Amino acid sequence: MNSDTHIPEADALRFEVQGHRYISQAAAKIDVDFDYDGPLMKTEVPGPRSRELMKKLNGIQNAEAVHFFCNYEESRGNYLVDVDGNRMLDLYSQISSIPIGYSHPSLIKLLQQPQNLSTFINRPALGILPPENFTEKLKESLLSVAPKGLSQVITMSCGSCSNENAFKTIFMWYRNKERGHNNVTKEELESCMINQPPGCPDYAMLSFMGGFHGRTLGCLATTHSKAIHKLDIPSLDWPIAPFPRLKYPLEDFVKENQQEEARCLEEVEDLIVKYRKKKKIVAGIIVEPIQSEGGDNHASDDFFRKLRDIARKHGCAFLVDEVQTGGGCTGKFWAHEHWGLDDPADVVTFSKKMMTGGFFHKEEFRPNAPYRIFNTWLGDPSKNLMLAEVIKVIKTEDLLNNATHAGKALLTGLLDLQARYPHLISRVRGRGTFCSFDTPNDATRNKLITIARNKGVVLGGCGDRSIRFRPTLIFKDHHAHLFLNIFSDILANFK
Amino acid sequence: MNSDTHIPEADALRFEVQGHRYISQAAAKIDVDFDYDGPLMKTEVPGPRSRELMKKLNGIQNAEAVHFFCNYEESRGNYLVDVDGNRMLDLYSQISSIPIGYSHPSLIKLLQQPQNLSTFINRPALGILPPENFTEKLKESLLSVAPKGLSQVITMSCGSCSNENAFKTIFMWYRNKERGHNNVTKEELESCMINQPPGCPDYAMLSFMGGFHGRTLGCLATTHSKAIHKLDIPSLDWPIAPFPRLKYPLEDFVKENQQEEARCLEEVEDLIVKYRKKKKIVAGIIVEPIQSEGGDNHASDDFFRKLRDIARKHGCAFLVDEVQTGGGCTGKFWAHEHWGLDDPADVVTFSKKMMTGGFFHKEEFRPNAPYRIFNTWLGDPSKNLMLAEVIKVIKTEDLLNNATHAGKALLTGLLDLQARYPHLISRVRGRGTFCSFDTPNDATRNKLITIARNKGVVLGGCGDRSIRFRPTLIFKDHHAHLFLNIFSDILANFK
Repeated sequence: MNSDTHIPEADALRFEVQGHRYISQAAAKIDVDFDYDGPLMKTEVPGPRSRELMKKLNGIQNAEAVHFFCNYEESRGNYLVDVDGNRMLDLYSQISSIPIGYSHPSLIKLLQQPQNLSTFINRPALGILPPENFTEKLKESLLSVAPKGLSQVITMSCGSCSNENAFKTIFMWYRNKERGHNNVTKEELESCMINQPPGCPDYAMLSFMGGFHGRTLGCLATTHSKAIHKLDIPSLDWPIAPFPRLKYPLEDFVKENQQEEARCLEEVEDLIVKYRKKKKIVAGIIVEPIQSEGGDNHASDDFFRKLRDIARKHGCAFLVDEVQTGGGCTGKFWAHEHWGLDDPADVVTFSKKMMTGGFFHKEEFRPNAPYRIFNTWLGDPSKNLMLAEVIKVIKTEDLLNNATHAGKALLTGLLDLQARYPHLISRVRGRGTFCSFDTPNDATRNKLITIARNKGVVLGGCGDRSIRFRPTLIFKDHHAHLFLNIFSDILANFK
Repeated sequence: MNSDTHIPEADALRFEVQGHRYISQAAAKIDVDFDYDGPLMKTEVPGPRSRELMKKLNGIQNAEAVHFFCNYEESRGNYLVDVDGNRMLDLYSQISSIPIGYSHPSLIKLLQQPQNLSTFINRPALGILPPENFTEKLKESLLSVAPKGLSQVITMSCGSCSNENAFKTIFMWYRNKERGHNNVTKEELESCMINQPPGCPDYAMLSFMGGFHGRTLGCLATTHSKAIHKLDIPSLDWPIAPFPRLKYPLEDFVKENQQEEARCLEEVEDLIVKYRKKKKIVAGIIVEPIQSEGGDNHASDDFFRKLRDIARKHGCAFLVDEVQTGGGCTGKFWAHEHWGLDDPADVVTFSKKMMTGGFFHKEEFRPNAPYRIFNTWLGDPSKNLMLAEVIKVIKTEDLLNNATHAGKALLTGLLDLQARYPHLISRVRGRGTFCSFDTPNDATRNKLITIARNKGVVLGGCGDRSIRFRPTLIFKDHHAHLFLNIFSDILANFK
């Protein structure tokens, strides 16, 4: 590995030393022609150029969240290059939003085809004036990977808009069900104009503590991951259930975890009943297959099957938010496909790796009139075009199986590190490459992320003290081994 | 004008007849090399190919709002071409979202430059890992046209997210002002996680009846344009003031209109006081410079200056929603620049013609910590790149003055048509090309739009019975005359 570096010499040397590596196995390298062959660090990160640019940006907006500035032209495959020339193995992939790596040759080719130019520069109002190939591209892309039983799809510009519009779709469905006919009263039409019932009914979405579903006001009422997301923003009195807090290793806590899940499910039912008593109707339940921002909290497939049953029993819609889990990283295209539901989810939202936001839904959730689920853009056909290409690559290169395989290499390695460094790593968990572990505390977590970055690995945090892995779908076994080698050294030398 | 048409022969003939045209003046034609020279109709619209595609799309989503399918590759300048080969003069421009016409040569060139490829295929998480040229592109684009006094800018993916995040920015500002310090209590941090005060305070945005600010739950609580947008969606008890309903012609109703505006302003103050009494604090006021979706409702510059004063007097933020009015169509870059405010607006939101959503704000509204106004994408640098080019074109081609000039031609012509067809056209109004008129009723309005479309002109409706003009910024005098000639014939023959 190259190490043309300005970081302190001792660190640089340690970086080169092979002694304490966790694997004897040589990291098998599959050649992906556009990928780099390893990190290459020239400065600390953020480097001087990044710092200079951060200062400039901070003049026009709060730029304190910026990690560093990037050179996307030079970024390729699993490697993110920054403006100081540092090249890092990216296991965070823009908060889990890069599906097939940076500068993928298929996407470059797509952009170079003259017939695609128009799609990028003439953005239509999709709901009224779609392009000729709109349906065809949706079929090639989103519908070709639609969860079973969900025949309808609507595109949106981002994850928050996807959830907001999914809520609306659920509220309309619920109200129509309650009405039993399509005749809207004059009172409803008039009262809705001034935000009052019966036109604006007192409906709610039930969400889980620790969940994250976006930051617009409707979404934010179902988000309960960090206080900083919610502080000072008015909200809605919607029910919030506890999400199971599983103990690890799972095999040692089978009974406790079952009890914990049963407790949470019981609370869900109690809340639905309790809120109905105070005339606030739970029209739907929203849940992530793995609570991501909230700390990579998993629950068993059985928990979700039972939750789905509770939703059905109480006439609530079951909305699965796959914004972060969707797109293949868990080894199935949608994480909730692991559950083996008899009755599919009613609505499934997506964004991030799907390049466009949007949601799938069952036919019975179809809006009963035009313009009810609508906005000017309703997504962006240039994103659909790219997504169709991305899905072609996922299929051709068998990237779901790759996620399973590379995920296994990553998880096995993390479990080994946990065995060796139990004071630093605990609760190792994951599905596909969607892995994570806990550190003792926030400060240690952040220090580990910073050290890893300076060694050429970009990691992300979540929850209070977890580190999450969100590599691209072209993250292979050899990338896992490369990371594990570097991280093993970091842990060995961690003070 | 070509008329290779399948529409009934009588109509086709009438279309050719020059006799009843409203102007003697020959429509002066400025050559815009990529623009077409007039409509060209081959079928009724929607034609057979559009109908076939609508049926297909309707299988996967409610497609009843679709007007027709488009061939964007063939669309150029002010002309939208459909999949049946019909070429129409577009005065609606994708619900006012196409700034410099279809397939503008500058944008094609931009897309063809290899150095820009990366920006389109590597979409970053802008808040944490911006590209090297991020600040520079913001300065070239958004900041080069920032409303006076608003030094800060944040980008978002769409108009709704822009308003939602503007609300949040205002709520945080208000709460910090109320606190008087930066120390957040444990009670606030805990209560906000469960959607309760004091962490989630009972703050409100005051909006106006007839306003439209988007369709996500927070935005929707301030939207009061049509019942179909709001029906069945739970909402917030936020105050709604009446918006002036001016009488036309303005010069004949000076006193009545002044009284009407005074009444509305008084109601604004009363509502702020009334809501404070019930412990619901109006943290901000949101208003459109011209209520667009709600029916192109104008108020005087004086009204807005006084409204701004009321906001300041009561300590409320003043948020101007320029999603539809911004970008130059009124003859100034921002419609609210016509008002001549002493104290600038506090927050100004945009989207549509700006290609990216987002908002400008005063420095005192800057979030006091990172991640408070945040989401994965925070807009899209590929849109910033295109916007920088669009703004260059607007400046080079003096398109603001063009909007004033072409708008005058359009408005003068509409006033003339109103004088000749008072039973069909009333309340002609406009600023720049942002013009509109009323028809006697919904049915007549829709019929006029359909006839115009079959004659090669795309128009849009708004409110109950208005027709609105939302051409691109490269809409010239000769396009106005072309439209007026066609529409004059339509009115002459309207039954």
